Amino acid sequence: MRLVRYNVAASLDGYVAGPHRNFDWIPDDPTVDFARIFAKVDTVLLGRKSYEVALDLGEPAWSADARVFVFSSTLRPENHPDVTVVADHAVERVRALREEPGDGEIWLFGGGELFRTMLAGGQVDRVEVTIAPVLLGGGTPLLAPRAPQTQLALVDSHRYPSGLVGLTYAVVR
Amino acid sequence: MRLVRYNVAASLDGYVAGPHRNFDWIPDDPTVDFARIFAKVDTVLLGRKSYEVALDLGEPAWSADARVFVFSSTLRPENHPDVTVVADHAVERVRALREEPGDGEIWLFGGGELFRTMLAGGQVDRVEVTIAPVLLGGGTPLLAPRAPQTQLALVDSHRYPSGLVGLTYAVVR
Repeated sequence: MRLVRYNVAASLDGYVAGPHRNFDWIPDDPTVDFARIFAKVDTVLLGRKSYEVALDLGEPAWSADARVFVFSSTLRPENHPDVTVVADHAVERVRALREEPGDGEIWLFGGGELFRTMLAGGQVDRVEVTIAPVLLGGGTPLLAPRAPQTQLALVDSHRYPSGLVGLTYAVVR
Repeated sequence: MRLVRYNVAASLDGYVAGPHRNFDWIPDDPTVDFARIFAKVDTVLLGRKSYEVALDLGEPAWSADARVFVFSSTLRPENHPDVTVVADHAVERVRALREEPGDGEIWLFGGGELFRTMLAGGQVDRVEVTIAPVLLGGGTPLLAPRAPQTQLALVDSHRYPSGLVGLTYAVVR
């Protein structure tokens, strides 16, 4: 079974984007080893809004040869030839990806609505939140409202020089 | 200047109480040394809702000789002789407490609305969140919505056997 990892940066009050969909609150920290963290990722999952944000930011955060799935009922696939647009059966689609052979990992990039859908559908294995030393007071929640309560088990924690704290949890089923 | 410390337990998604004002998601962890953590606390600040929750829970979490201030414009002081009810000028009242002599500490017990008021008024020195290994998916936010963005500096972190992670921040002014 390939792991689905929800890996995001969040404020201490639980937002993954600021009130203006801004990310300027995430400190640059050269000790964060993205290459190591995402070494086994070959598949990326995004909601429509997160995909638009990622496009705006330019250079994608994932490897150029990763498969990218965007979950949206409004995007027209022909306008986005570099990704696979998934319009329905999102949970079943991700279940099938998890059951593929190999040990490649699946990065649930965001956002909080896709996370809620996949959590409710039992398709998330890891929750990895890097907490930035800031209170945003508003923005896009880490997890969309009215999600199912979910028990986690702490697997790892790491304190970075910038004050970022990385917390890695397994989802308890 | 006496320290005002917002010290709470929160879920990973940033709630300090569950959807039914429940706290059953906070693991018991005998290694949490409350006596040490609150050794210098001689003053406690609560919003009205948090006060009602604390009354419901019975045995208060703070020392029997602590001064307790409840911020509420609806509570009748004569019905609550063991506490001081503060109906207005909340920020000025806390500023005066901070400026008292001595090194006794002030525990901002909660909730998120009083925290927002005090944060906006510049009266919070420390933010101390103990993160429980759970996603609640809803409840009472750690910080009430539309609060000012506030930079923090990580002072300490501690990983407990139960999977609780204690994060202590100073408010950067």
